[in-house]
Amino acid sequence: MNDHVLKQEIAKADKAINDRDFETVASCYTEEAVLVVKPGKLVQGREAIKAAHQKISDYFNGSLNVTQGNMVVIEAGDIALVLSKTYIESPEKTDSEFSSERDAIYIYQKSADGTWLCAIDNSYGVTLLESDTQPSA
Amino acid sequence: MNDHVLKQEIAKADKAINDRDFETVASCYTEEAVLVVKPGKLVQGREAIKAAHQKISDYFNGSLNVTQGNMVVIEAGDIALVLSKTYIESPEKTDSEFSSERDAIYIYQKSADGTWLCAIDNSYGVTLLESDTQPSA
Repeated sequence: MNDHVLKQEIAKADKAINDRDFETVASCYTEEAVLVVKPGKLVQGREAIKAAHQKISDYFNGSLNVTQGNMVVIEAGDIALVLSKTYIESPEKTDSEFSSERDAIYIYQKSADGTWLCAIDNSYGVTLLESDTQPSA
Repeated sequence: MNDHVLKQEIAKADKAINDRDFETVASCYTEEAVLVVKPGKLVQGREAIKAAHQKISDYFNGSLNVTQGNMVVIEAGDIALVLSKTYIESPEKTDSEFSSERDAIYIYQKSADGTWLCAIDNSYGVTLLESDTQPSA
């Protein structure tokens, strides 16, 4: 599990988020990818996701430190489901309303050149089922 | 939400499971689909999934009644993530070790002809992160 290519891909994306390198963050997603910004709020497309990540980072006063713990990867051809313990630290933002430990759901899609890109990024996992609002783009 | 095509697809698959119509069940999956039979046990491919559903139905003494409740669908091009409250009743099997109410994760893939097929069927959702065993086919 430690050296699964998707674990490496997610570590790369986390590092880019933590480094505020939003070009690299955007390059980790498919063109039509969807990011769950928060329950009830989705953004779609690389440019929108790039802007959203910048806003999220700003919300955490630039102190965001995202890391992953235990991970389960299920591959089915060119699609993979990743379940991951996601930890969100933000020393400069201690009053966030969102949980700092999440059971995240990431869906990856294998490109024609063999690289994996994130198609759906839902760090809130199944907790969206508990929200009053259905997500919308 | 009520008339989302994926809600209809999942209702069709559930009806086929409940009716023990395993040909129809198998037709709801992609060729390379993966079914999480239970934590730590995966099967891959339509034929294997068909056989697994028959075994699961037998385990519940043919009395399985699968239904879905609240559902969240997130589409990203030809991939969709479905989060769903899944209810599993089995009047003839009241001593199952598995939970009868689950926050399931289904991944659907749109075929070239526009029909949605299930690529990953994980009724155990993020609870796989709590399992001691990593899933394996």
